[in-house]
Amino acid sequence: MSIGIFDSGFGGLTVLKAIRSLLPSENIIYFGDTARLPYGTKSRETIERYSIENGSFLIEKGIKVLVVACHTACSLALEKLEQTFDIPVIGVTTPMIEQVAQISKRGKIAILGTRSTIASGAYQNAIQKILPSAEIFGVACQLLVHLVEEGYIDHPITTMAIYEYLHCLKEIDTLILGCTHFPLLFKQIQQTVGEHVQVIDPAHFCAAALKKLLEEKQLLNPLHEPTTQFFVSDDPEKFRLLGKTFLGQPLPDVVLKKKSEIFLYNGLNSSFSEELS
Amino acid sequence: MSIGIFDSGFGGLTVLKAIRSLLPSENIIYFGDTARLPYGTKSRETIERYSIENGSFLIEKGIKVLVVACHTACSLALEKLEQTFDIPVIGVTTPMIEQVAQISKRGKIAILGTRSTIASGAYQNAIQKILPSAEIFGVACQLLVHLVEEGYIDHPITTMAIYEYLHCLKEIDTLILGCTHFPLLFKQIQQTVGEHVQVIDPAHFCAAALKKLLEEKQLLNPLHEPTTQFFVSDDPEKFRLLGKTFLGQPLPDVVLKKKSEIFLYNGLNSSFSEELS
Repeated sequence: MSIGIFDSGFGGLTVLKAIRSLLPSENIIYFGDTARLPYGTKSRETIERYSIENGSFLIEKGIKVLVVACHTACSLALEKLEQTFDIPVIGVTTPMIEQVAQISKRGKIAILGTRSTIASGAYQNAIQKILPSAEIFGVACQLLVHLVEEGYIDHPITTMAIYEYLHCLKEIDTLILGCTHFPLLFKQIQQTVGEHVQVIDPAHFCAAALKKLLEEKQLLNPLHEPTTQFFVSDDPEKFRLLGKTFLGQPLPDVVLKKKSEIFLYNGLNSSFSEELS
Repeated sequence: MSIGIFDSGFGGLTVLKAIRSLLPSENIIYFGDTARLPYGTKSRETIERYSIENGSFLIEKGIKVLVVACHTACSLALEKLEQTFDIPVIGVTTPMIEQVAQISKRGKIAILGTRSTIASGAYQNAIQKILPSAEIFGVACQLLVHLVEEGYIDHPITTMAIYEYLHCLKEIDTLILGCTHFPLLFKQIQQTVGEHVQVIDPAHFCAAALKKLLEEKQLLNPLHEPTTQFFVSDDPEKFRLLGKTFLGQPLPDVVLKKKSEIFLYNGLNSSFSEELS
């Protein structure tokens, strides 16, 4: 059985990278919903529907745990996914939030995310629950997603956009990268907010929590030659090329999910009906 | 019977505006595929599939002509749409391209579009066919789409991005706005390329061709109180708010397309099967 990871597209590869480095013996199946990306500008209902379809696709492939690598899906659809599926579901940010009291010294925390992630208030509320005294600044940085996807990593336009979004955050001690595209801008973000601010990529906490879960449930893979499979809903070749930037190494074959492999989930029981096509 | 217009989301409202001003008595049904936007970064297969689904939805609502307001759909799926449907199909750019020999004095033409529009080569090839001596520069300006959708119209980041994309175009006499978002940046684009360059919005040619077609086929609407209906596949309230920028006036009610109203087209005959769910 494999670890299943889904994301709206490319960004989740930064999460896969963190998981692969902590769990080198695991089989991993990654699904990027490239036909419908981005999620960060869409509504809760639509993101819930897409997330359940993605999870269903991976479960059909045979997975023992589902990692929601997309922060927008994590903040808007995690509860729905947990209710829907019988296997454990881990959201990319949840493990980090659980430790936020140990991470942030003064409780002045900025969260950077897509428009939908920040508007949902999910991360802000979850942190406030654990650290009621925290002062939390949610910053919707939608444009940074598109700049990264266009390859504008080290570019004056991106520097200007980061400054525009972050220059007012004078008082914070912790900044959370609440979108999987933002670790690619780690250096520029750190420079903008200053060295006194901890910049946190939740993916590392997610990988550690996943390892702990697999150990506890005795689900670790004894294999020595693990596989990593990639599926997308559109343009596998583009995913292979652009994905290299996110994963930090070349990708092997990427497979286009066939239309007949889309499973629609009906209601909250566990029956599926294959979509016509 | 109505005029049907579809777009990937908001941008097509600039086309609707041009059509409405030339054809004030017509009923119009607009569909924005906001659950799956943007189209400009996606593959031909996916855009063809989405376009046929969108066209089918509008035909079910009762339309006499289909306007493809999205340039990406126009450059990648127009032929497929014409083969598929029995009603006339007008692509937003086709009428302008047919007159390109009259428009461009020296045949030095730049086309600005999304990544998929430019990569398809469809507009470049169509112009070359009509004006074989033309020198054509296709410029993929993907980022401008996102800047407009984020409301960065009059902003230094947008000015910088426009300069970055266009500053090498020294020799052109004509610049075609090959994406429905770009008319919102008309002023800045004109300033960047200089007053000696004609900046062309194909929507006006599309509206004129549509009027001519309806006259020729005696399909003009005699009504005095025409209706305009708006449907989207996600987040009607956001569409209503953001759409105002594109349409230049407030939008009335926007209706969320129900999942059961998605019609999947099977093959190239004219039968439809309703999607399960």
